[in-house]
Amino acid sequence: MVDAADNTPCDAVVLLSGGLDSAVTLALARHAGLRCAALSFEYGQRHHAELAAANRVAQSLGVDRHLVVPLDLRAIGGSALTADIMVPKDRAPGEMNDIPITYVPARNLIFLSIAAGYSEVVGARSIHLGVNAVDYSGYPDCRPAFIESFAACAKLATKVGVEGRGLTIQTPLIALSKVEIIRTGVELGVDFSLTHSCYDPAPTGEACGHCDSCLLRKQGFADAGVPDPTRYAK
Amino acid sequence: MVDAADNTPCDAVVLLSGGLDSAVTLALARHAGLRCAALSFEYGQRHHAELAAANRVAQSLGVDRHLVVPLDLRAIGGSALTADIMVPKDRAPGEMNDIPITYVPARNLIFLSIAAGYSEVVGARSIHLGVNAVDYSGYPDCRPAFIESFAACAKLATKVGVEGRGLTIQTPLIALSKVEIIRTGVELGVDFSLTHSCYDPAPTGEACGHCDSCLLRKQGFADAGVPDPTRYAK
Repeated sequence: MVDAADNTPCDAVVLLSGGLDSAVTLALARHAGLRCAALSFEYGQRHHAELAAANRVAQSLGVDRHLVVPLDLRAIGGSALTADIMVPKDRAPGEMNDIPITYVPARNLIFLSIAAGYSEVVGARSIHLGVNAVDYSGYPDCRPAFIESFAACAKLATKVGVEGRGLTIQTPLIALSKVEIIRTGVELGVDFSLTHSCYDPAPTGEACGHCDSCLLRKQGFADAGVPDPTRYAK
Repeated sequence: MVDAADNTPCDAVVLLSGGLDSAVTLALARHAGLRCAALSFEYGQRHHAELAAANRVAQSLGVDRHLVVPLDLRAIGGSALTADIMVPKDRAPGEMNDIPITYVPARNLIFLSIAAGYSEVVGARSIHLGVNAVDYSGYPDCRPAFIESFAACAKLATKVGVEGRGLTIQTPLIALSKVEIIRTGVELGVDFSLTHSCYDPAPTGEACGHCDSCLLRKQGFADAGVPDPTRYAK
């Protein structure tokens, strides 16, 4: 699905990775009655499973538009991030607080900036982002202080902000645990089987079950007492 | 020229469009003795003349790295910005204060955000941007208030900022007129024949001489009393 050719205005731009968190974020915005423009990024070959999930989630939850922007952030990482890095497996929760090798510097800043430009185009007054400061506290750009600062900056950078119509950054999951996020999704009828979290999926799209993201997801479903619909390899 | 495979640290990331302003910005940073990583964006076919100029300027002024990030921002503009739009010609200076059809919402915000990520990778403590609030006052993201806000936000978004090593945004041209920018470049030995400003160049790379950017450039050279080295079509 690509962006509609028409200029139908939307209320909100929702960053949609295809993962569990962004699906719940979109479900919350739809539940609030907002007309949503979903925004995803195409990183490169490795993430096609994510994009396919983003498309499924966008269709399932009913968006007015879905724009996929090609942006290979690995170029910024230079030699540190190549297509051949090993994704860490079976790390203990304590280890996950280290910034992982898959971290892209300033990623949320970059994604939010593009969302700010897109919000201007579609007339949206809010940008919704499924960041979470509980499970990934090591990322500087997942913290509330960053989000507040970005909101102030985006108002100054855009016509919609300058003209006083307002542009807010909504992070409804920022203080929730993975369990709370999953339970919220269940209440809103999110079909988690459509989502994809794995950093290192099989060519068939099945999750590896051992990367940080799979481990957090598995644990979340177990702790929430919700059956895990994920298809794992092997 | 692409980014070097090694991890040689740099002092500064300089946004380099290939135009006159960014060339002078880079020259100022080099004059200050900074090891520079230039950062350019590949918008699409239309802007190849700009990228070629950015490469020439980067080599001429001596950068340690030059990264070109593919990022087709026209996708964000949706139907409003296609490859077939007409570039306005022979507008009077008063008309140029309107936001032109070639404007991309939040462009400087997006470019600076990617520069913030890149600065983290190369270890740079400053980002240099040739924005100018005098000739293009209609752009919200060229104003000093936006730049200051972004600097605060980038500190919160990046490791280099969070760890207190500091990350500043330098806009040395922000209060200069085009005449002052050209004179500064002449003093620093910038070869303006390497730069490219035209929004609508001929296939051979010659400038059209009639778009807003050409008109401002021509007038700047005339007012500065500096011979205009630009190759114009016809």
